Amino acid sequence: MSEKIAVSSRADETPPSGIVAVVKHGRGREGLIPLWSGEGDLPTPAFIGEATTRALEAGETFYTWQRGVPELREALSRYYARLYAEPVPAERVFVVGSGMQAIKLSIDLVTSPGDEVVYLTPAWPNFPAAAGVSGARTKAVPLTEENGAFSLDADRLAASIGPHTRAIFVNTPANPTGWTASREDLDALLELARKHGLWIIADEIYARYYYGEGERAPSFLDVAHAEDRILYVNSFSKNWSMTGWRIGWIVAPEAVGQQLENLIQYSTSGVAPFLQRGAVAAVEEGEAVVRENIARAAHGRDVLCEALLATNRVAMAKPAGAFYAFFAVDGITDTMAVAKDIIDRAGVGLSPGVAFGPGGERFLRACFLRDPRQMKTAAERLADYFSAL
Amino acid sequence: MSEKIAVSSRADETPPSGIVAVVKHGRGREGLIPLWSGEGDLPTPAFIGEATTRALEAGETFYTWQRGVPELREALSRYYARLYAEPVPAERVFVVGSGMQAIKLSIDLVTSPGDEVVYLTPAWPNFPAAAGVSGARTKAVPLTEENGAFSLDADRLAASIGPHTRAIFVNTPANPTGWTASREDLDALLELARKHGLWIIADEIYARYYYGEGERAPSFLDVAHAEDRILYVNSFSKNWSMTGWRIGWIVAPEAVGQQLENLIQYSTSGVAPFLQRGAVAAVEEGEAVVRENIARAAHGRDVLCEALLATNRVAMAKPAGAFYAFFAVDGITDTMAVAKDIIDRAGVGLSPGVAFGPGGERFLRACFLRDPRQMKTAAERLADYFSAL
Repeated sequence: MSEKIAVSSRADETPPSGIVAVVKHGRGREGLIPLWSGEGDLPTPAFIGEATTRALEAGETFYTWQRGVPELREALSRYYARLYAEPVPAERVFVVGSGMQAIKLSIDLVTSPGDEVVYLTPAWPNFPAAAGVSGARTKAVPLTEENGAFSLDADRLAASIGPHTRAIFVNTPANPTGWTASREDLDALLELARKHGLWIIADEIYARYYYGEGERAPSFLDVAHAEDRILYVNSFSKNWSMTGWRIGWIVAPEAVGQQLENLIQYSTSGVAPFLQRGAVAAVEEGEAVVRENIARAAHGRDVLCEALLATNRVAMAKPAGAFYAFFAVDGITDTMAVAKDIIDRAGVGLSPGVAFGPGGERFLRACFLRDPRQMKTAAERLADYFSAL
Repeated sequence: MSEKIAVSSRADETPPSGIVAVVKHGRGREGLIPLWSGEGDLPTPAFIGEATTRALEAGETFYTWQRGVPELREALSRYYARLYAEPVPAERVFVVGSGMQAIKLSIDLVTSPGDEVVYLTPAWPNFPAAAGVSGARTKAVPLTEENGAFSLDADRLAASIGPHTRAIFVNTPANPTGWTASREDLDALLELARKHGLWIIADEIYARYYYGEGERAPSFLDVAHAEDRILYVNSFSKNWSMTGWRIGWIVAPEAVGQQLENLIQYSTSGVAPFLQRGAVAAVEEGEAVVRENIARAAHGRDVLCEALLATNRVAMAKPAGAFYAFFAVDGITDTMAVAKDIIDRAGVGLSPGVAFGPGGERFLRACFLRDPRQMKTAAERLADYFSAL
């Protein structure tokens, strides 16, 4: 290792991901069942890759539209028409290089250095870290937790809004907690944003992984207008087994299109056109893939949550959405150390709660979007481990 | 068009690309020869796409190493070993989502909001724009221009360094001017950086497009040590006809690896592994592709530059590197208007000098990496247009 060379304070203060830390600890272990990432175990379906191959063979390898190829923006518009009452014209859709980039660009679009964003915790660590890279300050507002069940206290959120607040980041269904905003929650959040002239960055990446009634979780699209200051961030990763592809999208008010295009231009300058052809195939022909993934998650949720609850050692509610069990275990406080020990001794990869900010420290996160037999084995291993504590 | 909605000042102040402006004016015109972008007309060679297809078929569609797959980092290390005296171990190589992202991440690594970077103009507009998005200030230092030939005045650059300066951005060979740092220039720049404790962001994307002696332009690798504060940014786009792929890389001091990995994590979280397999094929088996592209550019340079010089209306030197003719024309001042008129009346797409900052306003840029017959036609059209002024 070389000696220290001074980098910027922003780079120096940006923490490593606590999720990546456990992945590095356990990557390549034989027999390990990795539930640490937000990723299923199925590769991308062949028809999606084939559409990409055809585009490659057709020579679609040049610079392309900064906002995304028109066919993909139109396909996503039709996807919204199928699932949501609120129409989303293609002009409001912007294709970007991952859900992560959708979040990063949204932060840049609505904050300047020194501005503040409030967000609900426990949260996926990449949101506050990305805001920090952009020079924005973040204020964590913990969800209310009772015996492992999380809920929104809108008054607490309201009280956190200050003179520098520019936006509220809302991830629903939420990673890692599974908290899913009700229609009333969404109304309250939107009212708050309108009252204070704030943006909402609505991370609805897990919208389809919803275990209540209907085909998807409640959405800001159900309560907002097209002109509301809302940026919907989304990704191909979870729905269509495309985590490795790095394609996401943003739905934005049409009026900010040029500014958003500029931010795309000066960060990565668009997404490979041949990848976008695969994404078109996913959206247009991939509904069965989404349903299969949802069914896998629903099954994994039952298997894992029931095994954990049966130990009588955990505080947890079966999550209303997303695909994680997020649970506290009697007697466990140092979750980073325990996550590594579980890798070493139980052969299961979990993420430590410390990675997810205020309110999550005592918890562990397990992704349950996985092969049913592996989920059963993982559940048994974890139950044995916790019962032996 | 919807009414204006307030975005952040950073987004509001980020200008649209002046290159994109002309592309939007002319895209889809029948018979137009587009020389406006930094892009050749050859699609990616089939063997590169085939390597990607094989990886897709093998299911390499999951999250992957944030720094890039080891095989690609090692292939790039071998690439440096073939072309440069200074060895570059794989540990110093970071795969990112485009040359543009290599620049953006480098800015984030070495500046915090309010810090300053000096750079040489005329310049590719995306560098100062990306710095602005990051909250960094930029100070333009014009190259010295004499009858269309550009050179470095190191004293002028030295005089621009102030208390907030953190880095010098050096693009050599340069887009759009073709200016190529000599070994003496590189020594002077490095000495300046060492003296003031500054970083150098060395954009050597056009290193192979060099019309002097040897296989590549002089590089900071020729004069620096592995521990110098230099970030080398590079891209697959130009060498291997992969503009649309959005893959680039950074060579950094090993000591800053974790911080750079964090910035990758919180911007786009890595590059699709199956794309990286295509990139491995390009580096390992694509030297003939690079040589063909260089030969095309060398021929296009002769055809275009000689036709323009023969009009006796242009100020221009044949560029020492990169693949652009950058020239001023007697009587032309509003280059944005003229670039659009040339699209409309001459059927050739050029970029306007105003897009490239101080010192470039009177110039026009033409990419000459293109089919020889098209280059001949374009050169004739431009010569006719300028001669008729």
